[in-house]
Amino acid sequence: MSRFLRKQYEKMEPYTPGEQPKIPDLIKLNTNENPYPPSPEAVKALSGEDMESLVRYPDPEASDLIDAAAEFYGLEKNQVAVGNGSDEILAFIYMAFGEKICFPSVSYGFYPVFADVFGCDAKAIPLTEDLRIDPADYMDFDGTIIIANPNAPTGIALGRDEIEELLRADDSRLVVIDEAYVDFGAESCVPLIDKYDNLLVVQTFSKSRSLAGARIGLALGAAALIEDINKMKFSFNPYNLDRLAIIAGTAAIKDRTYFEECCGKVAATRERFTAKMEELGFQVLPSKANFVFARTDKISGKDYFTKLRERAILVRHFDKEPISDYVRITIGRDEDMDRLLAVTEEILCEQVK
Amino acid sequence: MSRFLRKQYEKMEPYTPGEQPKIPDLIKLNTNENPYPPSPEAVKALSGEDMESLVRYPDPEASDLIDAAAEFYGLEKNQVAVGNGSDEILAFIYMAFGEKICFPSVSYGFYPVFADVFGCDAKAIPLTEDLRIDPADYMDFDGTIIIANPNAPTGIALGRDEIEELLRADDSRLVVIDEAYVDFGAESCVPLIDKYDNLLVVQTFSKSRSLAGARIGLALGAAALIEDINKMKFSFNPYNLDRLAIIAGTAAIKDRTYFEECCGKVAATRERFTAKMEELGFQVLPSKANFVFARTDKISGKDYFTKLRERAILVRHFDKEPISDYVRITIGRDEDMDRLLAVTEEILCEQVK
Repeated sequence: MSRFLRKQYEKMEPYTPGEQPKIPDLIKLNTNENPYPPSPEAVKALSGEDMESLVRYPDPEASDLIDAAAEFYGLEKNQVAVGNGSDEILAFIYMAFGEKICFPSVSYGFYPVFADVFGCDAKAIPLTEDLRIDPADYMDFDGTIIIANPNAPTGIALGRDEIEELLRADDSRLVVIDEAYVDFGAESCVPLIDKYDNLLVVQTFSKSRSLAGARIGLALGAAALIEDINKMKFSFNPYNLDRLAIIAGTAAIKDRTYFEECCGKVAATRERFTAKMEELGFQVLPSKANFVFARTDKISGKDYFTKLRERAILVRHFDKEPISDYVRITIGRDEDMDRLLAVTEEILCEQVK
Repeated sequence: MSRFLRKQYEKMEPYTPGEQPKIPDLIKLNTNENPYPPSPEAVKALSGEDMESLVRYPDPEASDLIDAAAEFYGLEKNQVAVGNGSDEILAFIYMAFGEKICFPSVSYGFYPVFADVFGCDAKAIPLTEDLRIDPADYMDFDGTIIIANPNAPTGIALGRDEIEELLRADDSRLVVIDEAYVDFGAESCVPLIDKYDNLLVVQTFSKSRSLAGARIGLALGAAALIEDINKMKFSFNPYNLDRLAIIAGTAAIKDRTYFEECCGKVAATRERFTAKMEELGFQVLPSKANFVFARTDKISGKDYFTKLRERAILVRHFDKEPISDYVRITIGRDEDMDRLLAVTEEILCEQVK
């Protein structure tokens, strides 16, 4: 730390991204990436691009991407804003609307960090004992509410009707639904946008569209909210999406068939994998995401994580209560999950000895 | 504006990027892009990249790019941070060090915007009558100083020794030198980094490295300062550079020969163009950048800008005092500048009639 740092940031704890190690033949199930490559249309669009065009600034409006996203979601163009990943969208939301804000105490690890960065009056609302979000706990909060749906790292989803109740209960507060994982089987709140001007939906291309490496996020909501988000963007980093990200994202979102196919495959693998883990004695929370959150009495979360890592399988463990018993396992290809199951059997056998 | 926006942002004026219009055969000299394409090594690296790798998150440390930049500048790795364009780096600097901050009243248009965004106590220090930055005017300021060197939109540069005086005068304050345009002929302060721990240098790949479309900026300075910048980055958007930007930037900065060749060509064109403009009766400020700031008694800045635009030549005009007489003209290829000179002669002839 330098002697010039603002006092307010001295004790701030930055977000810790999941490891991106360079271990050969690693089965990487720790950062919820998609096991399937980006749409062939996105790959083709990038391969066909004249890379010399990088000499020019990107379109700060990212119009091609906005148009394609609006078309996909059945929204108007002025109901869509783009960010450099959904992290940047979330940052803009905290900047613009985060004066008083709440979020689940167990959720995306970035939510409390953003609150520190932007000096928000933040409240973390505990999960229920079975690690669910209970909308009733949010009903009386008189500030902005952020909920990841499905929640991470549990994978448990709320129904659209439950969120609609929150929206309807008090339209003087904003409800932000972070749908990073919604495409793998939960109900999106996008159909509620035209009905509720206090709803913002956040989406990312990093999961269901296999473009984690391109950094694309979306905010979807009423035009006035999108205008505010763009005010933040144009006051912070107008050219936040580079030319290639705009090209890749535009092509990817136009390819609805491939997108649905990949999401379907991941969901099917998740169900199959969950059943097998339960057979091995794991308790697996009911996930609608591209990961599962699992625990067993047979081995601690930390030991299971460590033993998997020794065998070149990387999952994610959060060393904090009330979730330290669990590991979060990204859903990969069937063969990855089979390997994980086989290794898990080995590990459990060792435990018994 | 929505009813949810924080009061502090209601009146904030976002930055206005230079136009990126889609006019065919436009000679685009308005946003200080490089007239020469990115390094062939960068183009080759991107073309050789397996675009399916975009399914994975980028390296949040951007180690390859940091290593290459450290090597280029003769710094340690912990003296370099990367941002999604130098705009994001500047934003992080305002966040981290901007509690009290000053900058020239005529300079990069984003400086006062960042001050609004981050609620800084900001002071704009006027230029001298001949549009120069006088370091003496900054000598007694007891907060962070930001100076673009060369300054924009004037193109006028301070010498390294003048900046060293500022650094030495009071080491309890941070001095940030924004070197977006330094490579076209001014003296970089990078050689002072090991001597002064109150110096931060900001650079961009958008100008001298022909990668405006890839969004890459650097902060260079003492390890403690870089640590603070990274604290902001990892609390705001850890994956701020996408995979392709890291690849392009790494290859570009390794290609020193091409870089020096392009900068040399731009500087030579600038000198030739300046002489011709002076022959046409323009007053051209002495520029060390890849643009010139020019005025004439024969036509107002606004009219000259408009008449050029009608003839498909785009330059930049700032409709504010004390610079409304001027236009800022990016240095393009020789043939672009010849066309601009010919068109200017036409315009001036019309004025006389």
